[in-house]
Amino acid sequence: MSKGPVVIEVTRGPVVESRHEGAAAIVKADGTVVDSWGDIDTRILPRSANKPIQAMAFVESGAVEKFGLGKEHIALSCASHNGEQRHVETVRAWLKKANLSEADLECGTHPPRLQASIEALVRENAAPTAAFNNCSGKHSGFLSTAVAYGEPTKGYIKYDHPVQKRLRDVMSDLSGEKADDYAYGTDGCGIPTLATPLKSLARAMASMADPSRLSNRHAEAAVRIRDAMNAEPFMVAGSGRFCTRINEALPGVAQVKTGAEGVFCGMLPGLGLGVAIKMWDGAGRAAEIAMATLLGHLGVLSAAQKEELLHPPVKNVVGLLVGEMRPAKSWLG
Amino acid sequence: MSKGPVVIEVTRGPVVESRHEGAAAIVKADGTVVDSWGDIDTRILPRSANKPIQAMAFVESGAVEKFGLGKEHIALSCASHNGEQRHVETVRAWLKKANLSEADLECGTHPPRLQASIEALVRENAAPTAAFNNCSGKHSGFLSTAVAYGEPTKGYIKYDHPVQKRLRDVMSDLSGEKADDYAYGTDGCGIPTLATPLKSLARAMASMADPSRLSNRHAEAAVRIRDAMNAEPFMVAGSGRFCTRINEALPGVAQVKTGAEGVFCGMLPGLGLGVAIKMWDGAGRAAEIAMATLLGHLGVLSAAQKEELLHPPVKNVVGLLVGEMRPAKSWLG
Repeated sequence: MSKGPVVIEVTRGPVVESRHEGAAAIVKADGTVVDSWGDIDTRILPRSANKPIQAMAFVESGAVEKFGLGKEHIALSCASHNGEQRHVETVRAWLKKANLSEADLECGTHPPRLQASIEALVRENAAPTAAFNNCSGKHSGFLSTAVAYGEPTKGYIKYDHPVQKRLRDVMSDLSGEKADDYAYGTDGCGIPTLATPLKSLARAMASMADPSRLSNRHAEAAVRIRDAMNAEPFMVAGSGRFCTRINEALPGVAQVKTGAEGVFCGMLPGLGLGVAIKMWDGAGRAAEIAMATLLGHLGVLSAAQKEELLHPPVKNVVGLLVGEMRPAKSWLG
Repeated sequence: MSKGPVVIEVTRGPVVESRHEGAAAIVKADGTVVDSWGDIDTRILPRSANKPIQAMAFVESGAVEKFGLGKEHIALSCASHNGEQRHVETVRAWLKKANLSEADLECGTHPPRLQASIEALVRENAAPTAAFNNCSGKHSGFLSTAVAYGEPTKGYIKYDHPVQKRLRDVMSDLSGEKADDYAYGTDGCGIPTLATPLKSLARAMASMADPSRLSNRHAEAAVRIRDAMNAEPFMVAGSGRFCTRINEALPGVAQVKTGAEGVFCGMLPGLGLGVAIKMWDGAGRAAEIAMATLLGHLGVLSAAQKEELLHPPVKNVVGLLVGEMRPAKSWLG
């Protein structure tokens, strides 16, 4: 039974200044919806929140062994990273191991996320390259997979390339639906992003959290990916980021991944649950609080973590506390 | 009669990926609501969208004449500027004319908005100062006003300082309400931001668009402010910004001003109307399209301007067109 929507409030002084609405589903691997808020049948674009699912095909390809890669690379293949030095250098070294270079990346280039990284580039009189793209780890995974299977790497971002087809096959296996039937848009990094019912996305995450119904091949990959996200949380995002903090703080308990336009996914292996959130307005600030709220609701956060993550302060330019963000009382506040 | 809400959609491929809701009021100076969508009685925080109203007290103080200032300074007093070179240098020279310095600004410091400005600072090995704050023009107006009246400048951001009290008096005169009764939060730059019914904010803008019911003193200031916003559109925002483009393109016809958290205000002197918009989720991208849609609806945009402003493209990292933003069909799309 779906209840009222996810609601996150942003206050300033005595006023609720802004308000975000969304939907969330908590689902078991067999597709049972354990709890939900808002319309979870609507098709959403998972964007980067399904990178752990997309990493399955990479891990299953044998590329990790073939190219002598480790947990840091698996974590990077699930990442929307900050483009910090360690992210960029790890991607560059990885591509070299697969006899590839940044020129093979088809994700394009954007400036790194952190002010300090931007300033460092200017000081070096350097421009960002494709390795700085927050998706460069995922794309290195795609490229490595194609090389491992002896496929042409060029055009690996296109819908009909075997790399993308495998992602749909994995998604079908994990969600119990036919991902080939999904409509799709083009993601920021150029790959197809499939219009997926929110509850099916949650079910796919549940299948990774509890892979008992999956093939051995899928199950083994899911466990390795979860393990890598906890073991190398910096690689999943970077300094100060929500995904990094959660994956670091809850080893073995939770693995979470953000996506653009207010999407968030999570796995809870101990509970055998998958979580998927979409804020309808695309607000990442609200999706983070919604994820923290659900983790608290499911009992995996300490009181201190709940206080810190569910009620982040709103500060003004001089650092004065002027408000907070919070789950609304009408939801789980 | 209020109709359904303002709705702005963000598409990606065949999918409406995100959706923003809000309210908008089009009001006459006598308080008549000409048209509205969503709940316009709700109190919202105007943030920077009411800077043209706040500039009234500055213009009326005689500070412009006393310190040999011009239209560029009046425009800056209404600005949320980019912190580009001309903005910063004009603020610094202005403060000097009033025998003040950046140390008197109580707005705090944040990095400038444009990547190029950030990079220029790094190259000069310089840090941003208070003049780079997007509100530094407004604050220079506040300081100049205090000096013109012989008041202490220290603490000019506080609720009980005469500078802030005058802002409430102006707001009361323009809106026909008692702004002293409003609750308030603290704005990004430290001043009180008053919890104002959306329709009252629109009425205050209408009073500036059609100042025939105001005192001569208020009426003259309103005309000068409108004129300055059109004459110096760069000073109101900066390179590439929506406010600058509209105020430049529609001299004498429209003056618009954005505010944080999805607020937008506008004056339409030819029509004698004021406009106020609040997107409930705080999304600036949606507030811009809502303002463009209302300007088109009111007949002040050309067909080419409507095409450009109502349907901005969504591009991915490599510059591919992957979607658009637009007013929903359920609203004015």
